[in-house]
Amino acid sequence: MKLLVLNGPNLNMLGIREPDIYGNETYADLVHMVEDYARERGIEVECYQSNHEGALVDKIQQAYFDGVDGIVFNPGAYTHTSIALMDALKAVRIPCVEVHISEISSREDFRQWSYIRPVCKSSIAGHGLAGYIDAIDILLSE
Amino acid sequence: MKLLVLNGPNLNMLGIREPDIYGNETYADLVHMVEDYARERGIEVECYQSNHEGALVDKIQQAYFDGVDGIVFNPGAYTHTSIALMDALKAVRIPCVEVHISEISSREDFRQWSYIRPVCKSSIAGHGLAGYIDAIDILLSE
Amino acid sequence: MKLLVLNGPNLNMLGIREPDIYGNETYADLVHMVEDYARERGIEVECYQSNHEGALVDKIQQAYFDGVDGIVFNPGAYTHTSIALMDALKAVRIPCVEVHISEISSREDFRQWSYIRPVCKSSIAGHGLAGYIDAIDILLSE
Amino acid sequence: MKLLVLNGPNLNMLGIREPDIYGNETYADLVHMVEDYARERGIEVECYQSNHEGALVDKIQQAYFDGVDGIVFNPGAYTHTSIALMDALKAVRIPCVEVHISEISSREDFRQWSYIRPVCKSSIAGHGLAGYIDAIDILLSE
Amino acid sequence: MKLLVLNGPNLNMLGIREPDIYGNETYADLVHMVEDYARERGIEVECYQSNHEGALVDKIQQAYFDGVDGIVFNPGAYTHTSIALMDALKAVRIPCVEVHISEISSREDFRQWSYIRPVCKSSIAGHGLAGYIDAIDILLSE
Amino acid sequence: MKLLVLNGPNLNMLGIREPDIYGNETYADLVHMVEDYARERGIEVECYQSNHEGALVDKIQQAYFDGVDGIVFNPGAYTHTSIALMDALKAVRIPCVEVHISEISSREDFRQWSYIRPVCKSSIAGHGLAGYIDAIDILLSE
Amino acid sequence: MKLLVLNGPNLNMLGIREPDIYGNETYADLVHMVEDYARERGIEVECYQSNHEGALVDKIQQAYFDGVDGIVFNPGAYTHTSIALMDALKAVRIPCVEVHISEISSREDFRQWSYIRPVCKSSIAGHGLAGYIDAIDILLSE
Amino acid sequence: MKLLVLNGPNLNMLGIREPDIYGNETYADLVHMVEDYARERGIEVECYQSNHEGALVDKIQQAYFDGVDGIVFNPGAYTHTSIALMDALKAVRIPCVEVHISEISSREDFRQWSYIRPVCKSSIAGHGLAGYIDAIDILLSE
Amino acid sequence: MKLLVLNGPNLNMLGIREPDIYGNETYADLVHMVEDYARERGIEVECYQSNHEGALVDKIQQAYFDGVDGIVFNPGAYTHTSIALMDALKAVRIPCVEVHISEISSREDFRQWSYIRPVCKSSIAGHGLAGYIDAIDILLSE
Amino acid sequence: MKLLVLNGPNLNMLGIREPDIYGNETYADLVHMVEDYARERGIEVECYQSNHEGALVDKIQQAYFDGVDGIVFNPGAYTHTSIALMDALKAVRIPCVEVHISEISSREDFRQWSYIRPVCKSSIAGHGLAGYIDAIDILLSE
Amino acid sequence: MKLLVLNGPNLNMLGIREPDIYGNETYADLVHMVEDYARERGIEVECYQSNHEGALVDKIQQAYFDGVDGIVFNPGAYTHTSIALMDALKAVRIPCVEVHISEISSREDFRQWSYIRPVCKSSIAGHGLAGYIDAIDILLSE
Amino acid sequence: MKLLVLNGPNLNMLGIREPDIYGNETYADLVHMVEDYARERGIEVECYQSNHEGALVDKIQQAYFDGVDGIVFNPGAYTHTSIALMDALKAVRIPCVEVHISEISSREDFRQWSYIRPVCKSSIAGHGLAGYIDAIDILLSE
Repeated sequence: MKLLVLNGPNLNMLGIREPDIYGNETYADLVHMVEDYARERGIEVECYQSNHEGALVDKIQQAYFDGVDGIVFNPGAYTHTSIALMDALKAVRIPCVEVHISEISSREDFRQWSYIRPVCKSSIAGHGLAGYIDAIDILLSE
Repeated sequence: MKLLVLNGPNLNMLGIREPDIYGNETYADLVHMVEDYARERGIEVECYQSNHEGALVDKIQQAYFDGVDGIVFNPGAYTHTSIALMDALKAVRIPCVEVHISEISSREDFRQWSYIRPVCKSSIAGHGLAGYIDAIDILLSE
Repeated sequence: MKLLVLNGPNLNMLGIREPDIYGNETYADLVHMVEDYARERGIEVECYQSNHEGALVDKIQQAYFDGVDGIVFNPGAYTHTSIALMDALKAVRIPCVEVHISEISSREDFRQWSYIRPVCKSSIAGHGLAGYIDAIDILLSE
Repeated sequence: MKLLVLNGPNLNMLGIREPDIYGNETYADLVHMVEDYARERGIEVECYQSNHEGALVDKIQQAYFDGVDGIVFNPGAYTHTSIALMDALKAVRIPCVEVHISEISSREDFRQWSYIRPVCKSSIAGHGLAGYIDAIDILLSE
Repeated sequence: MKLLVLNGPNLNMLGIREPDIYGNETYADLVHMVEDYARERGIEVECYQSNHEGALVDKIQQAYFDGVDGIVFNPGAYTHTSIALMDALKAVRIPCVEVHISEISSREDFRQWSYIRPVCKSSIAGHGLAGYIDAIDILLSE
Repeated sequence: MKLLVLNGPNLNMLGIREPDIYGNETYADLVHMVEDYARERGIEVECYQSNHEGALVDKIQQAYFDGVDGIVFNPGAYTHTSIALMDALKAVRIPCVEVHISEISSREDFRQWSYIRPVCKSSIAGHGLAGYIDAIDILLSE
Repeated sequence: MKLLVLNGPNLNMLGIREPDIYGNETYADLVHMVEDYARERGIEVECYQSNHEGALVDKIQQAYFDGVDGIVFNPGAYTHTSIALMDALKAVRIPCVEVHISEISSREDFRQWSYIRPVCKSSIAGHGLAGYIDAIDILLSE
Repeated sequence: MKLLVLNGPNLNMLGIREPDIYGNETYADLVHMVEDYARERGIEVECYQSNHEGALVDKIQQAYFDGVDGIVFNPGAYTHTSIALMDALKAVRIPCVEVHISEISSREDFRQWSYIRPVCKSSIAGHGLAGYIDAIDILLSE
Repeated sequence: MKLLVLNGPNLNMLGIREPDIYGNETYADLVHMVEDYARERGIEVECYQSNHEGALVDKIQQAYFDGVDGIVFNPGAYTHTSIALMDALKAVRIPCVEVHISEISSREDFRQWSYIRPVCKSSIAGHGLAGYIDAIDILLSE
Repeated sequence: MKLLVLNGPNLNMLGIREPDIYGNETYADLVHMVEDYARERGIEVECYQSNHEGALVDKIQQAYFDGVDGIVFNPGAYTHTSIALMDALKAVRIPCVEVHISEISSREDFRQWSYIRPVCKSSIAGHGLAGYIDAIDILLSE
Repeated sequence: MKLLVLNGPNLNMLGIREPDIYGNETYADLVHMVEDYARERGIEVECYQSNHEGALVDKIQQAYFDGVDGIVFNPGAYTHTSIALMDALKAVRIPCVEVHISEISSREDFRQWSYIRPVCKSSIAGHGLAGYIDAIDILLSE
Repeated sequence: MKLLVLNGPNLNMLGIREPDIYGNETYADLVHMVEDYARERGIEVECYQSNHEGALVDKIQQAYFDGVDGIVFNPGAYTHTSIALMDALKAVRIPCVEVHISEISSREDFRQWSYIRPVCKSSIAGHGLAGYIDAIDILLSE
């Protein structure tokens, strides 16, 4: 089994960016946590982060050709603006779980709408970094 | 540690109600699953379901006087219409995790708004009955 | 054949409540009219009224277990605010006809939207108490 | 007693037009059903259909001069766009009952608004062709 | 003279619920204050609180049969969502004064709309518990 | 000089239609008044009324080929719904004055928008039948 | 008979202000035209212009105490923003005709709404300065 | 203790202006009532009315330099349109109670929004002139 | 193969109507161009234009009985207002291509919505009269 | 060269009004700073502040007759509500630069719209009092 | 003559992506078809696809420096979200034709708005890959 | 002191792009002007332009690690669509001034909203290239 853990813009700034919202752990911590968990569960995982909408679309398309079985996706700000990412997920038909570190529902109005959620099979918000582990579990339980 | 697993209107109809959306397991299955898991983790749990908005408000208030440590809440249709439940959660200040069995974001417009989510610390949707277990884990990890 | 004639909030106040809109006949008159007509047509009918949204949800669910064949439903004010009643009707899949005593379309804006109508097979408005008889006829003609 | 049964655009296509929504009976079937029922009840009835908004306005005005006692009106698509038909009904002050063959509330947004309903004394939807008979009954029961 | 002092959901939590908004006095304090004032003014008063929308509708209807002369009503969260309570007040035609403990206009958008205010003869907001006394005075001054 | 006085749907019902809004004078009275005034001012005038949107479009186009110098237009209900009439006026480029018998601004929301006004050089409302004379004067004063 | 011709903000700049919209004649020209016409018709007229909303409210109130019989009012920009002027006209109950020099309907969105028109008996737009004479005629024809 | 009782546009027309809404008592009656009550309570009070938004802003600013302890404010039509008055109240930080003579919530849409209420500590509506006395009591009870 | 080329209101005014938008060629030129092309491709074609919404509905229905294989439709202003034409196309189920001579997307807001496009298999805009030829090609290529 | 530095409502309260937003410097400080800078640059400047919308309109019109070459304008709360000031600036055609002391974009919704900005050649926000100097520089650089 | 055929995000997935909407032909098929047609017509053509909004902007700018005569553009999901692409087209002023493979008007609401269409000279939708050929023809026919 | 002058999409096309809006100076001219001014003021400055949203996010993040003291940012079209850039600025907490060459407020509706402005300390619009110098001054004056 092969999973892709995909992070969108500014998630490489974890630990630096608004720590009262996103916590003190860094993106490197996140990668380690995910890789350790994957090893433990005996699955293959790739972590990828980009600030470029197009690079994220490219990666999702690549996942199709690489035979990836599931995607854990925190699209960051592109959650609310990217139809291209929505279309990419629909094109590749790989099961996807949306993750948000914080509970975004109490933030600005423009963060209430998600183009990504309607094409995912589940969504998790507000569980911090542990939400990524939950998402892997959901994909494994298929 | 003492948790309340609260279910709103029509969740007692699980297994009967729109099985293509909500699955074939019944409310009794849900209660057993939750109770088994609680026993395993050594915590105390109460399951409660009602079709009455007022009865759910009463229960949340009672939880305050009973010293409940966390609430797992699937408010069903009241998610989208009940300010009274939102106010009750704010009044008692008990950590709460919102659960939805299906991914509701691809359904009707009037199901997109949640009065409950802004007063919860996390939310889980689309993981079926397993979402309740995820929610208990989130409350335990505090 | 077994029908349920369900009335929502304030319909027990018929005859007292705004008689220029709702007429002078009482809720008791309505029950008698319906029971007489049921006897005449050789069908079984139960009349139930409640001001409690939850009690109406309970009753609709109970109808499922009692093998009710059709529901005549005047949801009163809950027409415009209750997703829980909509969900209950979808859960039980019993044919339902919506009735309103007055023609509500010329009243306030917030009375223009019905959560109930999209899950009913027909709707009747503005025929006074006779609308309940029309609704029974529609259910019988299936 | 003299009634006008008025049908708007595309209702002459009954039986051909989207039969899963409108059924297999034709406009001729509708006219026969109405005429038979009128004969039985001893009333005079005229059936008229047009695809022209202006012709429907003309007919409603003519009804005033012909001493028509009631109008059964299925305005089809003009339900949602014609203020002229609304004004014509207000001008002639003849009691009118609005009929729709299907339950239109679960269809497109632009079919939710009716200019005709606020100037009718009742409305019936989702009872198929039988709704025209219901409407005649309502006018006779005045 | 006979008055009903009616409180909606979560007002039984006064003193516990968000004390920076609602103050430290409890619901029991409110009842005592109202009863003392009623005794002083030589009027009969009943205090009633419920978290159930339906129970509040029932109580308003009961007030009609009990010959109540005026209602002081703090509908809490139902202010913004209950057409059933609005209809109940219109049905019984008993003079009503709306009270809110805090000035709600600077809170969330969904708290700006009141279904209750248009059917009341006055409204008072932001005077704390003393607003109930003001409301009684307004009813007595009729 | 040659003018066209054009009236839209239901204006042939003047005197019959809602006399408290539109007055007691008939369409024939209007035609006589206009013809007398035209004779007095030494101009040629044609009065035309139709309930058909298409017939009004035809007439406006015909006016172009007949060399009409100005149009006085009361579009009735088509004021608010007809882009075709707006396009016809733009196509023929004949100066046009919009007339409404009553002051429509205090009526329903859907009567507040005019497709016709933006392509007219002036508009007159609320002067009764005399508004048609004002409109002729405006066209003559060019 | 005594009339008040009231002009709002920037109408004293006529002839200077955007001459392609408002023409080349000055406010003094307007006053002379109105006074000449009043003399001819044997009526008393006062012309008043102010850029101050409050001063216009004061003047309308004063008109009540001076026994003014009619008001010709071009409220300029206050047309779209002043509820105070609307209330003043309702308070004094003096017949009023609204005038606009240009046809404002093809200008910005925020110029489409008039607070003044619903409390006037007629309105004239797009007839240039001659619109003031039309308005006087309408008031005289009462 | 020193209070300012401030009235906005058209409140000087009390007794003349729409007496079915605002009652028959005059502005002079209001001033006497307030002054008598102030004398009785041993406080200093100034009554001020203006139709000018700017003059009301000036007066609120002056109150700051005069050491006024509280403001009772009926902003009339400026309630709904004046951000300048809102800013003035925020600038001077003097406790303010908003008063409306009638219950405005059942009137036009544009009267539902108040720029003033969010910067007041309480609001009273629908108690007639007695609302001013209630407001003074609220300021005294601080 | 048999095609219908249908043109809506004001398209008979081509060459006269706003030539900077619609060009200098006339409706007769359009008919010749279409007929020449049909001859060349060996297909039968009928051109029809009307300013009457009802006549266009009639024609579409007639096409059904005449066995027409495809419709090229420029609905003009009815594009944006006619649900009746949309319903007619759905009733007859004949493949249809929508044509607009100019690119309408940069024009008024009310021209952005098309009732016709969702029931067509393709749409072409901004190619002038040549768009009609493109549309025929699309129908032939089926 | 002659400039007018115009300040709207409550800007005379600088130093007193919400110092965390507007800073501690007073309006007198602002005037001195502007006058010193004008002296240094060898230009003539007049500073004017008023809380009256009408007085600001008067001043802008007066600037036209005084031959003023440029206006620096902080319209305060009238930014968001005054069409009269917009019209005045358009009438006089004097180059204008809009200044706001704070960055207003993160404040209430009703402060997001400016009637003044579209008629200005530039705008500066969030530079404190120094923004007035920037604005003078922009006018001098023409 | 030199054309650029530009494709936005996910169009490289043709044949894989939702074949019921986009068909079974691949992006390579599209490129061959376009190149064959270009050879036949004796024109130079470059095909370019990217998932990166910025890369598409770069390419459009490059086209300016390369002297490209026309652009055929299917912006995919960026149709609905990219003002940057709109600005790029306006900056280079190269004639552009918008192409969509499917008729997008019957899909989600957020696909109804195009930032690209208003800066194109024509648009084609629903003609499958053949739409690209139509677009080339339109550019050649200039 | 170290500043970053960041320009978004199409600003490299200055001098070519719509010169009536953006002027004739090129992006190279802008860079020279900024570099000259930086030299004069003895500060270090880097100019960077990209059409890629992701590249701009990368650059802002890099600025954090490079110890940049302030950012002058003209986000071009991304002003209105990029939450990712807003989040990047919030993540790095470097003081930022927003610059627009033209006064954008009188352009299309979709250019009225800025995601960038709420996270900037000031904004300048309509001062042409000189606005960049103003912005540097504001950052230096901190």
